[in-house]
Amino acid sequence: MAIIVQKFGGTSVADAQKIRRAAQRAINAVKKGFQVVIVASARGQQTDELIADALEVNPNPPKREMDQLLSTGEQQSVSLFAMALQAMGYDAISFTGGQIRMLTDSVHTKARIKSVDTTRIKKHLDEGKIVLVAGFQGIDENDDITTLGRGGSDTTAVALAAVLKAQECEIYTDVDGVYTTDPRIFKKAVKLKQISYDEMLEMASLGAGVMHSRSIEFGKKFNVKIHVRSSLEEKEGTMIIHEVPEMEGVVVSGATIQKDMAKLTLIGVDNKPGNAARIFAHLAKAKVVVNDIIQTEVSDKKANLSFTVGTNDLAPAKEAITEIKDEVGCDKILVHDDIAEISVVGVGMRTHYGVADKMFNALAKAKINIDSITTSEIRISCIVKQEQAEKALEAVCLAFELDKAAEKRTKAKK
Amino acid sequence: MAIIVQKFGGTSVADAQKIRRAAQRAINAVKKGFQVVIVASARGQQTDELIADALEVNPNPPKREMDQLLSTGEQQSVSLFAMALQAMGYDAISFTGGQIRMLTDSVHTKARIKSVDTTRIKKHLDEGKIVLVAGFQGIDENDDITTLGRGGSDTTAVALAAVLKAQECEIYTDVDGVYTTDPRIFKKAVKLKQISYDEMLEMASLGAGVMHSRSIEFGKKFNVKIHVRSSLEEKEGTMIIHEVPEMEGVVVSGATIQKDMAKLTLIGVDNKPGNAARIFAHLAKAKVVVNDIIQTEVSDKKANLSFTVGTNDLAPAKEAITEIKDEVGCDKILVHDDIAEISVVGVGMRTHYGVADKMFNALAKAKINIDSITTSEIRISCIVKQEQAEKALEAVCLAFELDKAAEKRTKAKK
Repeated sequence: MAIIVQKFGGTSVADAQKIRRAAQRAINAVKKGFQVVIVASARGQQTDELIADALEVNPNPPKREMDQLLSTGEQQSVSLFAMALQAMGYDAISFTGGQIRMLTDSVHTKARIKSVDTTRIKKHLDEGKIVLVAGFQGIDENDDITTLGRGGSDTTAVALAAVLKAQECEIYTDVDGVYTTDPRIFKKAVKLKQISYDEMLEMASLGAGVMHSRSIEFGKKFNVKIHVRSSLEEKEGTMIIHEVPEMEGVVVSGATIQKDMAKLTLIGVDNKPGNAARIFAHLAKAKVVVNDIIQTEVSDKKANLSFTVGTNDLAPAKEAITEIKDEVGCDKILVHDDIAEISVVGVGMRTHYGVADKMFNALAKAKINIDSITTSEIRISCIVKQEQAEKALEAVCLAFELDKAAEKRTKAKK
Repeated sequence: MAIIVQKFGGTSVADAQKIRRAAQRAINAVKKGFQVVIVASARGQQTDELIADALEVNPNPPKREMDQLLSTGEQQSVSLFAMALQAMGYDAISFTGGQIRMLTDSVHTKARIKSVDTTRIKKHLDEGKIVLVAGFQGIDENDDITTLGRGGSDTTAVALAAVLKAQECEIYTDVDGVYTTDPRIFKKAVKLKQISYDEMLEMASLGAGVMHSRSIEFGKKFNVKIHVRSSLEEKEGTMIIHEVPEMEGVVVSGATIQKDMAKLTLIGVDNKPGNAARIFAHLAKAKVVVNDIIQTEVSDKKANLSFTVGTNDLAPAKEAITEIKDEVGCDKILVHDDIAEISVVGVGMRTHYGVADKMFNALAKAKINIDSITTSEIRISCIVKQEQAEKALEAVCLAFELDKAAEKRTKAKK
């Protein structure tokens, strides 16, 4: 019998009515002949409330106890979900991460899964039950509870789909799939029928918040078909799958916008081996997350080094580079805190030319100045002024026809 | 090093400030040289809130899932308690029932403890940590979470004190000890320095709500000194201990009042073997908790049978005996729902005479009619009219000098 894993986020199980609606989804899958495993997150804002409770007794709560505390949220969700299913006439049983031996390392608050014992899950599935598993949590070798960090319930779901060889892992959210870009900004954005793991990874790291990177990596590694869909409507969402040949015809699958960014530039850094490493090691020590890095040589002896950070990291970043400024021979520090990044992502870029050209032209026509440019194999990003960011996104979306379904776009030239 | 177990109820850990106050109690014990194990209940009204959440998704929630749900409340309390201790500079670690292998049978919502593995607790105590254990919960042989029923956290604490051979088990509550009677009704009630397990058991079953019977039974069986004391004040509370010779000098240790009771009388039941058993089996099937039973023969062939129940059980009790009425040959059913029971309890009754006499005289002087009387080895109970109940309690308390400390009362005659 084919297995399906369904994951419901916190908003999808926030109250009794929503739990019943989610339960109906599980029942529909049972009726279609699937064995069903449900993964649920903590209800509504509960995790945030528990974090607030913790901070009230300890401004710097020990991580082991934090995991012991936060894991209760998911445990409550799945037990209530199982009760709802039973009230609706379907046998169901809930498990904590510990009860199904979801073994992780001991890095509390961001543990990594090492193995899962499927014995209990399979036994109960074969008895005709719907099996519920608390998301986000595991246990280490000492039976201490661990949690998997942000997006942890997605990771639980994809991991279970992998070990159970599920036909599909459905991620139910409050959006109905992955869009070509943020529809709150570009109203004509369209939903993608499918997207490759690599594209989704780039989009996730560029702030498209549907799923967390780690679960997508997991899906890619273990060949799990991930279906992102709405918990409110029945219609199909977006499938995240391995790259298939037809994807190459589409040069750009999506575009992203990251606001609240800042760029720091170190002018006149001594151009000698080890200086860049020194600077970024120092930033890492200050726990600053650096996005893009651009270095340009200005002479044999001097270079300018720029990097971007989220504005919430601006203050510690400034402090860190001020500390190391003299050591690397930097003359001056420039700070721009009014920038944004526009990116386009697509596996088609690997085999097609003219993509960067098209993007720059679109921005030029819209009279938007490009501050700097970075690229990866399947991504091009431009830094622009914050105030022009939305206009820039729109121009780029129209240029790449992101208001049309993939099969209706002008065929790209190879 | 001597071990002390401290148990804090829900009101004692209801918010951050109260958790810190409770934590200070643990720290004080550490400073006195004890190794400290803390057992905590769920915060404030949390258990009731979770029960309400469950009933919203399922009016008849499956018990296994109920345990899975409710056990999270205690888990949250102990992790927050551990965080508070660490913020106050003391190393602490929290455990669920499962993590210390608090093994129970599989009777969900009222499981019984079978064994506890003290290895982990002792290891961490010996490393200088304060150990916290979630009350009320255990696991069965399948790793399914169980709960111990009403007063379960007391049972957890006393059980841990037993297996750890603790010097004392402190039960912190919002009252400062066990009183001769309910001070809200008899203002001059005094706190008892000590009381025997047997007396405390009688008082608990008569509605003195300080501790639940099962934990007292456990303490008696495993010789655990139980100290009931206030979480708000430093002063000594009441020690629950084995009977010592000096207790015999005190005829009556305490008096109780149970309001909200009803008496049902079956008139003219056929006086033949098996009829009483038939009636009470039928009541048990209807889940009616019967308090006292009084049977009187009215002829060779007929008897009258009375029993008392809490008023919340009156409707199902009436229904049950109406069903069985004809089968046992009963002519008529009488119901009194305006009664109360006044009881006196004391191990001294075993060796002293004149106790019943004194009680009946006190009630007679106060012009209170006694409806019926039942006794056990260390208890005498009288059913009176509800409206006279408080006056009756006061008369009895004054007769037995329950407004005076035990050592100051008139010496009883053997």
